Amino acid sequence: MESRFTSFVGGPTGPWKIVSMRAVSGNGMALASHLDLRDGLTEVEDVTWQLRGVASHLRYTNEDERKVLAAIQPALNRPEARCAVLIPIRKTAAWWLLAQDERRAIIEERSRHIAIGMTYLPAVARKLFHARDLGEPFDFLTWFEFAPQHAVAFDALLVALRSSPEWDYVDREVEIRLERKC
Amino acid sequence: MESRFTSFVGGPTGPWKIVSMRAVSGNGMALASHLDLRDGLTEVEDVTWQLRGVASHLRYTNEDERKVLAAIQPALNRPEARCAVLIPIRKTAAWWLLAQDERRAIIEERSRHIAIGMTYLPAVARKLFHARDLGEPFDFLTWFEFAPQHAVAFDALLVALRSSPEWDYVDREVEIRLERKC
Repeated sequence: MESRFTSFVGGPTGPWKIVSMRAVSGNGMALASHLDLRDGLTEVEDVTWQLRGVASHLRYTNEDERKVLAAIQPALNRPEARCAVLIPIRKTAAWWLLAQDERRAIIEERSRHIAIGMTYLPAVARKLFHARDLGEPFDFLTWFEFAPQHAVAFDALLVALRSSPEWDYVDREVEIRLERKC
Repeated sequence: MESRFTSFVGGPTGPWKIVSMRAVSGNGMALASHLDLRDGLTEVEDVTWQLRGVASHLRYTNEDERKVLAAIQPALNRPEARCAVLIPIRKTAAWWLLAQDERRAIIEERSRHIAIGMTYLPAVARKLFHARDLGEPFDFLTWFEFAPQHAVAFDALLVALRSSPEWDYVDREVEIRLERKC
Protein backbone atom coordinates (compact mmCIF):
# COMPACT_ATOMS: atom_id res chain seq x y z
CA MET A 1 0.00 0.00 0.00
CA GLU A 2 1.23 3.47 -0.87
CA SER A 3 2.06 5.44 2.27
CA ARG A 4 -0.49 8.05 3.32
CA PHE A 5 2.40 10.09 4.77
CA THR A 6 4.48 12.30 2.49
CA SER A 7 7.38 14.68 3.03
CA PHE A 8 7.92 17.53 0.59
CA VAL A 9 11.63 18.24 0.79
CA GLY A 10 13.17 21.46 -0.57
CA GLY A 11 16.91 21.46 -1.14
CA PRO A 12 19.71 21.32 -3.70
CA THR A 13 18.48 18.19 -5.47
CA GLY A 14 15.25 16.49 -6.50
CA PRO A 15 13.23 15.54 -9.59
CA TRP A 16 11.23 18.79 -9.53
CA LYS A 17 12.96 22.09 -10.29
CA ILE A 18 11.54 25.02 -8.30
CA VAL A 19 10.69 27.75 -10.80
CA SER A 20 9.44 30.31 -8.26
CA MET A 21 8.45 30.71 -4.63
CA ARG A 22 6.13 33.48 -3.44
CA ALA A 23 4.77 34.46 -0.02
CA VAL A 24 1.09 35.14 -0.80
CA SER A 25 0.09 35.81 2.85
CA GLY A 26 2.10 35.85 6.05
CA ASN A 27 5.66 34.65 6.42
CA GLY A 28 7.48 33.16 3.46
CA MET A 29 9.95 30.26 3.46
CA ALA A 30 13.62 29.81 2.66
CA LEU A 31 14.37 29.56 -1.05
CA ALA A 32 15.38 26.16 -2.40
CA SER A 33 16.20 25.09 -5.96
CA HIS A 34 14.64 21.62 -6.11
CA LEU A 35 11.89 19.54 -4.54
CA ASP A 36 11.77 15.85 -3.68
CA LEU A 37 8.66 13.94 -2.53
CA ARG A 38 9.39 11.16 -0.07
CA ASP A 39 7.19 8.58 1.58
CA GLY A 40 6.98 8.95 5.35
CA LEU A 41 7.68 11.66 7.88
CA THR A 42 11.25 10.80 8.89
CA GLU A 43 13.49 13.84 9.17
CA VAL A 44 15.70 14.31 6.11
CA GLU A 45 19.12 15.85 6.85
CA ASP A 46 20.98 18.58 4.98
CA VAL A 47 17.95 20.06 3.25
CA THR A 48 16.51 23.59 3.21
CA TRP A 49 13.06 22.65 4.50
CA GLN A 50 10.75 19.67 4.94
CA LEU A 51 6.96 19.94 4.96
CA ARG A 52 5.04 16.90 6.21
CA GLY A 53 1.49 15.91 5.33
CA VAL A 54 -0.95 13.02 5.49
CA ALA A 55 -3.53 12.08 2.87
CA SER A 56 -6.67 11.54 4.93
CA HIS A 57 -10.39 10.91 4.58
CA LEU A 58 -12.81 13.47 3.12
CA ARG A 59 -13.60 16.26 5.58
CA TYR A 60 -16.30 18.28 3.73
CA THR A 61 -17.11 16.48 0.46
CA ASN A 62 -20.59 14.95 0.42
CA GLU A 63 -21.59 11.74 -1.33
CA ASP A 64 -22.92 13.42 -4.52
CA GLU A 65 -19.73 15.45 -4.85
CA ARG A 66 -17.58 12.40 -4.11
CA LYS A 67 -19.20 10.46 -6.97
CA VAL A 68 -18.61 13.27 -9.46
CA LEU A 69 -15.01 13.66 -8.34
CA ALA A 70 -14.36 9.93 -8.56
CA ALA A 71 -15.65 9.94 -12.15
CA ILE A 72 -13.59 12.87 -13.45
CA GLN A 73 -10.49 13.39 -11.33
CA PRO A 74 -7.26 12.22 -12.96
CA ALA A 75 -4.37 10.38 -11.36
CA LEU A 76 -1.14 12.13 -10.51
CA ASN A 77 2.03 11.50 -12.55
CA ARG A 78 0.48 11.83 -15.99
CA PRO A 79 3.42 12.02 -18.43
CA GLU A 80 2.18 15.31 -19.90
CA ALA A 81 1.80 16.93 -16.44
CA ARG A 82 5.23 18.57 -16.34
CA CYS A 83 4.06 21.50 -14.23
CA ALA A 84 3.27 21.26 -10.53
CA VAL A 85 2.44 23.75 -7.80
CA LEU A 86 2.74 23.13 -4.07
CA ILE A 87 0.63 25.49 -1.93
CA PRO A 88 1.05 25.27 1.84
CA ILE A 89 -1.62 27.24 3.71
CA ARG A 90 -2.50 27.93 7.33
CA LYS A 91 -5.94 28.99 8.52
CA THR A 92 -6.75 31.28 11.44
CA ALA A 93 -7.54 30.20 15.00
CA ALA A 94 -11.09 31.51 14.41
CA TRP A 95 -11.54 28.99 11.57
CA TRP A 96 -10.64 26.04 13.74
CA LEU A 97 -13.10 27.09 16.43
CA LEU A 98 -16.05 26.93 14.02
CA ALA A 99 -18.43 23.97 14.10
CA GLN A 100 -18.43 21.47 11.21
CA ASP A 101 -21.56 22.86 9.53
CA GLU A 102 -20.23 26.42 9.72
CA ARG A 103 -16.97 25.43 8.02
CA ARG A 104 -18.80 23.43 5.35
CA ALA A 105 -21.10 26.40 4.64
CA ILE A 106 -18.14 28.73 4.15
CA ILE A 107 -16.17 26.25 2.04
CA GLU A 108 -18.90 25.16 -0.31
CA GLU A 109 -22.25 26.92 -0.02
CA ARG A 110 -20.56 30.36 0.09
CA SER A 111 -17.18 29.79 -1.57
CA ARG A 112 -17.88 26.90 -4.02
CA HIS A 113 -14.44 25.48 -3.28
CA ILE A 114 -15.32 21.95 -4.39
CA ALA A 115 -17.37 23.12 -7.39
CA ILE A 116 -14.62 25.50 -8.56
CA GLY A 117 -12.05 22.71 -8.40
CA MET A 118 -14.34 20.46 -10.46
CA THR A 119 -14.55 22.95 -13.32
CA TYR A 120 -10.78 22.56 -13.83
CA LEU A 121 -10.90 18.76 -13.96
CA PRO A 122 -9.41 16.73 -15.54
CA ALA A 123 -6.89 19.40 -16.62
CA VAL A 124 -5.64 20.20 -13.11
CA ALA A 125 -5.04 17.14 -10.91
CA ARG A 126 -4.78 17.80 -7.19
CA LYS A 127 -4.10 16.00 -3.96
CA LEU A 128 -4.66 17.38 -0.46
CA PHE A 129 -2.41 16.61 2.48
CA HIS A 130 -3.33 17.49 6.08
CA ALA A 131 -0.57 18.88 8.28
CA ARG A 132 -2.15 20.71 11.24
CA ASP A 133 -2.55 17.66 13.46
CA LEU A 134 1.04 16.66 12.80
CA GLY A 135 2.14 19.86 14.58
CA GLU A 136 3.40 21.36 11.31
CA PRO A 137 3.72 25.11 10.59
CA PHE A 138 1.03 24.87 7.87
CA ASP A 139 -2.44 23.30 8.12
CA PHE A 140 -2.65 21.97 4.56
CA LEU A 141 -0.36 21.21 1.65
CA THR A 142 -2.10 21.06 -1.71
CA TRP A 143 -0.27 19.55 -4.67
CA PHE A 144 -1.44 20.41 -8.20
CA GLU A 145 -0.22 18.86 -11.47
CA PHE A 146 -1.04 19.93 -15.03
CA ALA A 147 0.35 20.09 -18.56
CA PRO A 148 2.02 23.38 -19.57
CA GLN A 149 -0.91 24.35 -21.82
CA HIS A 150 -3.20 24.37 -18.75
CA ALA A 151 -1.10 26.85 -16.76
CA VAL A 152 -3.50 29.68 -17.63
CA ALA A 153 -6.47 27.62 -16.41
CA PHE A 154 -4.59 26.89 -13.19
CA ASP A 155 -4.00 30.62 -12.64
CA ALA A 156 -7.73 31.22 -13.04
CA LEU A 157 -8.45 28.51 -10.45
CA LEU A 158 -6.17 30.27 -7.96
CA VAL A 159 -7.84 33.64 -8.57
CA ALA A 160 -11.28 32.13 -8.01
CA LEU A 161 -10.31 30.42 -4.75
CA ARG A 162 -8.37 33.36 -3.34
CA SER A 163 -11.27 35.76 -3.92
CA SER A 164 -13.72 33.49 -2.06
CA PRO A 165 -14.99 34.07 1.53
CA GLU A 166 -13.07 30.99 2.65
CA TRP A 167 -9.78 32.79 1.99
CA ASP A 168 -10.65 35.40 4.68
CA TYR A 169 -9.60 32.61 7.06
CA VAL A 170 -6.21 31.98 5.42
CA ASP A 171 -3.45 33.78 7.28
CA ARG A 172 -0.38 32.19 5.71
CA GLU A 173 0.06 30.98 2.15
CA VAL A 174 3.10 30.20 0.04
CA GLU A 175 3.04 29.37 -3.67
CA ILE A 176 5.80 27.11 -4.98
CA ARG A 177 5.86 26.53 -8.75
CA LEU A 178 7.73 23.56 -10.19
CA GLU A 179 8.67 21.86 -13.43
CA ARG A 180 10.05 18.48 -14.32
CA LYS A 181 11.56 16.95 -17.44
CA CYS A 182 9.54 14.36 -19.33
CA MET B 1 -0.91 27.11 25.78
CA GLU B 2 -1.66 23.54 26.79
CA SER B 3 -0.29 21.09 24.26
CA ARG B 4 -2.83 19.56 21.86
CA PHE B 5 -0.66 16.44 21.75
CA THR B 6 -0.94 13.83 24.49
CA SER B 7 0.69 10.47 25.14
CA PHE B 8 -1.14 7.89 27.25
CA VAL B 9 1.62 5.78 28.73
CA GLY B 10 0.95 2.38 30.31
CA GLY B 11 3.65 0.98 32.57
CA PRO B 12 4.71 0.29 36.13
CA THR B 13 4.13 3.82 37.43
CA GLY B 14 1.74 6.73 37.01
CA PRO B 15 -0.94 8.70 38.86
CA TRP B 16 -3.75 6.49 37.54
CA LYS B 17 -4.04 2.88 38.68
CA ILE B 18 -5.36 0.54 35.96
CA VAL B 19 -8.28 -1.38 37.48
CA SER B 20 -9.07 -3.48 34.40
CA MET B 21 -8.31 -3.85 30.72
CA ARG B 22 -10.66 -5.60 28.31
CA ALA B 23 -10.53 -6.30 24.56
CA VAL B 24 -14.07 -5.42 23.46
CA SER B 25 -13.41 -6.01 19.72
CA GLY B 26 -10.33 -7.17 17.84
CA ASN B 27 -6.87 -7.49 19.31
CA GLY B 28 -6.22 -6.54 22.91
CA MET B 29 -3.16 -4.86 24.36
CA ALA B 30 -0.44 -5.77 26.84
CA LEU B 31 -1.49 -5.45 30.46
CA ALA B 32 0.00 -2.60 32.47
CA SER B 33 -0.60 -1.58 36.08
CA HIS B 34 -0.55 2.23 35.85
CA LEU B 35 -1.18 5.03 33.39
CA ASP B 36 0.55 8.37 32.95
CA LEU B 37 -0.62 11.21 30.69
CA ARG B 38 2.19 13.22 29.18
CA ASP B 39 2.23 16.29 26.94
CA GLY B 40 3.68 15.62 23.50
CA LEU B 41 4.38 12.62 21.32
CA THR B 42 8.01 11.93 22.21
CA GLU B 43 8.76 8.24 22.71
CA VAL B 44 8.89 7.27 26.38
CA GLU B 45 11.33 4.46 27.18
CA ASP B 46 10.85 1.41 29.41
CA VAL B 47 7.07 1.42 29.34
CA THR B 48 4.55 -1.24 28.33
CA TRP B 49 2.77 0.83 25.67
CA GLN B 50 2.31 4.41 24.53
CA LEU B 51 -0.78 5.63 22.71
CA ARG B 52 -0.53 9.04 21.02
CA GLY B 53 -3.37 11.41 20.23
CA VAL B 54 -4.12 14.98 19.24
CA ALA B 55 -7.03 17.10 20.42
CA SER B 56 -8.35 18.61 17.21
CA HIS B 57 -11.20 20.69 15.81
CA LEU B 58 -14.80 19.42 15.71
CA ARG B 59 -15.37 16.93 12.90
CA TYR B 60 -19.15 16.34 13.04
CA THR B 61 -20.63 18.62 15.72
CA ASN B 62 -22.80 21.37 14.29
CA GLU B 63 -23.19 24.89 15.67
CA ASP B 64 -26.38 24.19 17.66
CA GLU B 65 -24.80 21.13 19.26
CA ARG B 66 -21.57 23.01 19.92
CA LYS B 67 -23.44 25.71 21.85
CA VAL B 68 -25.23 23.17 24.04
CA LEU B 69 -22.00 21.27 24.71
CA ALA B 70 -20.13 24.47 25.59
CA ALA B 71 -22.84 25.31 28.13
CA ILE B 72 -22.95 21.97 29.93
CA GLN B 73 -19.71 20.06 29.48
CA PRO B 74 -17.47 20.05 32.56
CA ALA B 75 -13.71 20.45 32.70
CA LEU B 76 -11.41 17.51 33.28
CA ASN B 77 -9.61 17.06 36.62
CA ARG B 78 -12.60 17.72 38.88
CA PRO B 79 -11.49 16.64 42.38
CA GLU B 80 -14.44 14.25 42.75
CA ALA B 81 -13.75 12.56 39.39
CA ARG B 82 -11.61 9.72 40.73
CA CYS B 83 -12.70 7.27 38.02
CA ALA B 84 -11.49 7.43 34.44
CA VAL B 85 -11.84 5.21 31.39
CA LEU B 86 -9.61 5.28 28.32
CA ILE B 87 -11.20 3.72 25.23
CA PRO B 88 -9.03 3.36 22.13
CA ILE B 89 -11.02 2.41 19.03
CA ARG B 90 -10.29 1.75 15.38
CA LYS B 91 -12.87 2.01 12.60
CA THR B 92 -13.03 -0.08 9.43
CA ALA B 93 -11.58 0.85 6.05
CA ALA B 94 -15.17 1.11 4.78
CA TRP B 95 -15.88 3.85 7.31
CA TRP B 96 -13.00 6.00 6.12
CA LEU B 97 -14.10 5.72 2.49
CA LEU B 98 -17.51 7.26 3.26
CA ALA B 99 -18.20 10.89 2.38
CA GLN B 100 -18.58 13.46 5.16
CA ASP B 101 -22.40 13.60 5.02
CA GLU B 102 -22.63 9.78 5.11
CA ARG B 103 -20.46 9.59 8.24
CA ARG B 104 -22.38 12.40 9.93
CA ALA B 105 -25.69 10.67 9.17
CA ILE B 106 -24.48 7.43 10.74
CA ILE B 107 -22.95 9.15 13.78
CA GLU B 108 -25.80 11.44 14.66
CA GLU B 109 -29.01 11.12 12.65
CA ARG B 110 -28.95 7.29 13.00
CA SER B 111 -26.83 6.66 16.12
CA ARG B 112 -27.41 9.84 18.21
CA HIS B 113 -23.78 9.72 19.34
CA ILE B 114 -23.62 13.41 20.25
CA ALA B 115 -27.11 13.45 21.80
CA ILE B 116 -26.42 10.32 23.87
CA GLY B 117 -23.21 11.85 25.24
CA MET B 118 -25.12 15.01 26.19
CA THR B 119 -27.58 13.11 28.35
CA TYR B 120 -24.69 12.06 30.61
CA LEU B 121 -23.36 15.59 31.05
CA PRO B 122 -22.14 17.02 33.36
CA ALA B 123 -21.69 13.70 35.21
CA VAL B 124 -19.36 12.13 32.64
CA ALA B 125 -16.65 14.47 31.30
CA ARG B 126 -14.97 13.39 28.09
CA LYS B 127 -12.22 14.44 25.75
CA LEU B 128 -11.56 13.04 22.28
CA PHE B 129 -8.08 12.57 20.83
CA HIS B 130 -7.46 11.75 17.15
CA ALA B 131 -4.80 9.18 16.37
CA ARG B 132 -5.37 7.81 12.86
CA ASP B 133 -3.47 10.54 11.02
CA LEU B 134 -0.53 10.13 13.39
CA GLY B 135 -0.07 6.59 12.02
CA GLU B 136 -1.18 5.07 15.33
CA PRO B 137 -2.74 1.58 15.73
CA PHE B 138 -6.05 3.13 16.86
CA ASP B 139 -8.06 5.89 15.17
CA PHE B 140 -9.39 7.55 18.35
CA LEU B 141 -8.64 7.65 22.05
CA THR B 142 -11.54 8.81 24.20
CA TRP B 143 -10.89 9.79 27.80
CA PHE B 144 -13.80 9.82 30.27
CA GLU B 145 -13.78 11.09 33.88
CA PHE B 146 -16.51 10.79 36.50
CA ALA B 147 -17.12 10.44 40.23
CA PRO B 148 -17.56 6.88 41.59
CA GLN B 149 -21.32 7.38 42.06
CA HIS B 150 -21.69 7.94 38.30
CA ALA B 151 -20.08 4.64 37.30
CA VAL B 152 -23.49 3.10 36.62
CA ALA B 153 -24.46 6.01 34.38
CA PHE B 154 -21.18 5.61 32.53
CA ASP B 155 -21.90 1.91 31.91
CA ALA B 156 -25.28 2.85 30.47
CA LEU B 157 -23.58 5.35 28.14
CA LEU B 158 -21.30 2.60 26.83
CA VAL B 159 -24.22 0.23 26.24
CA ALA B 160 -26.10 2.90 24.29
CA LEU B 161 -23.13 3.75 22.07
CA ARG B 162 -22.07 0.16 21.42
CA SER B 163 -25.57 -0.85 20.33
CA SER B 164 -25.77 1.98 17.78
CA PRO B 165 -25.31 1.57 13.99
CA GLU B 166 -22.07 3.55 14.21
CA TRP B 167 -20.47 0.68 16.14
CA ASP B 168 -20.91 -1.64 13.12
CA TYR B 169 -17.87 0.26 11.81
CA VAL B 170 -15.71 -0.32 14.90
CA ASP B 171 -13.35 -3.24 14.38
CA ARG B 172 -11.04 -2.81 17.36
CA GLU B 173 -11.89 -1.50 20.81
CA VAL B 174 -10.15 -1.77 24.16
CA GLU B 175 -11.61 -0.60 27.48
CA ILE B 176 -9.16 0.53 30.15
CA ARG B 177 -10.66 1.41 33.55
CA LEU B 178 -8.70 3.56 35.98
CA GLU B 179 -8.82 5.05 39.45
CA ARG B 180 -6.82 7.71 41.22
CA LYS B 181 -6.49 8.86 44.81
CA CYS B 182 -7.98 12.21 45.77
